[in-house]
Amino acid sequence: MKKSLSVIKISGKIIDNESQLENFLYDFHNLNSYKILVHGGGVQIDNDMEKLGLPIKKFEGKRITDLDTMGVVLMNAFKLNYRIVQKLSSFSPNNWPSYIGLWDDRAVWRSTKRPVGDNGIDYGFVGDVSEKSLNLKDMSFNYGVPVFPPITLCHYNNTYYNSNADNVATAIALALSPQYSVSLSFISDVPGVLDADKNLIERITEADYAELKQSGVVSGGMIPKLDSAFKAITKGVSAVEIRNSLVRAGTTITR
Amino acid sequence: MKKSLSVIKISGKIIDNESQLENFLYDFHNLNSYKILVHGGGVQIDNDMEKLGLPIKKFEGKRITDLDTMGVVLMNAFKLNYRIVQKLSSFSPNNWPSYIGLWDDRAVWRSTKRPVGDNGIDYGFVGDVSEKSLNLKDMSFNYGVPVFPPITLCHYNNTYYNSNADNVATAIALALSPQYSVSLSFISDVPGVLDADKNLIERITEADYAELKQSGVVSGGMIPKLDSAFKAITKGVSAVEIRNSLVRAGTTITR
Repeated sequence: MKKSLSVIKISGKIIDNESQLENFLYDFHNLNSYKILVHGGGVQIDNDMEKLGLPIKKFEGKRITDLDTMGVVLMNAFKLNYRIVQKLSSFSPNNWPSYIGLWDDRAVWRSTKRPVGDNGIDYGFVGDVSEKSLNLKDMSFNYGVPVFPPITLCHYNNTYYNSNADNVATAIALALSPQYSVSLSFISDVPGVLDADKNLIERITEADYAELKQSGVVSGGMIPKLDSAFKAITKGVSAVEIRNSLVRAGTTITR
Repeated sequence: MKKSLSVIKISGKIIDNESQLENFLYDFHNLNSYKILVHGGGVQIDNDMEKLGLPIKKFEGKRITDLDTMGVVLMNAFKLNYRIVQKLSSFSPNNWPSYIGLWDDRAVWRSTKRPVGDNGIDYGFVGDVSEKSLNLKDMSFNYGVPVFPPITLCHYNNTYYNSNADNVATAIALALSPQYSVSLSFISDVPGVLDADKNLIERITEADYAELKQSGVVSGGMIPKLDSAFKAITKGVSAVEIRNSLVRAGTTITR
């Protein structure tokens, strides 16, 4: 039987709330399986851009990341990753498990620059990952529990890129599915996918999703998240859930 | 006969002047030997700290690097490194030589946190390197000419540290001296070591240095630079020079 592995992605909105973050990290620490944490960028990025007098550029809600913006993204990811690792480590006074922020080659780190699309938009320092682009040959839990920032390295031109944390988590989950029974959770500040009356949908199939999307009940950031979720469940991840806590059930993605 | 290798360190003050930087990089591009560039931090760091509302803390001129400060240091080093590599690459339209900013394990990347000294000062995210701490097993010029930022990685706690670029350059020069005939140049905005009348000293011995230091003619940032320079020349680097250009002679360090 394959060993269990939990791949958990937390979004920027939870990260920004200190007590929510601490509660989440405590639950994560108490998870009794192999585990990997992937965190999004901080909501602090826009504040810092403003203070530094840098223009915020987005297209269809996605950040256009020029060099100055990438500097701010990197700064925030570094600080956030460090704080998360410090907090997790504080729950682990004997250093077991230990937690490691991954800033070197023992990490995802492989991405390719998002190509300029038909719309002519160049997203700049944005790198896309797939389960095939991961550098997981040395992936091991011997060093500790990995905590991944949403930063990847393009080995072609050896620079850092800003990556979508949902995609990073999905790619990790898929890449490790042959060896582990992987459950993938997307944690954000909403309890899961909601229906037209704002009630939690406990289980969702791809057909349900298509209907909800067409009627406009599901929209915005939930769409790429559900796209990732269905990709994961279709291609070999054992369980996928969208939720706002590790201890409360959210929406389970079903085939 | 050993092959020649030039290890060149440029300081923040040159980096800040666009035309000086461009001239320097053009000369560096035209250097006809194996070569490595190490750059200091930008003078932009203090400006950004101020804009972000972060207090600047220094002790005896050395930066005390807390987490927020390290974020700003990393942001600036990343941007600077990228700009330098872009500019060098623009001189090299056929991509030979190619230039690579080193943000991964093919780099120095090994440092240890500076210990709290007798004065009780904790410099925070400051890492010291030595020629023994370098990860040079994969060092190769096959990938291109390396351009190192003054950022190192501590493998013990897997976090980035701020490092002194003079020390990084010296450690690289010493580590590669067994295989190469290494010349080490410290490039800044002064033509070299100056005597009491502000004239350039063309050659300096350790005895001269001791005298100049005692009389106060040599002071400030020149002291750690000369300490590094004499360490290098004593321990096996073939030639060490303090200068403000690759095409004008400065002060040659002699044993």
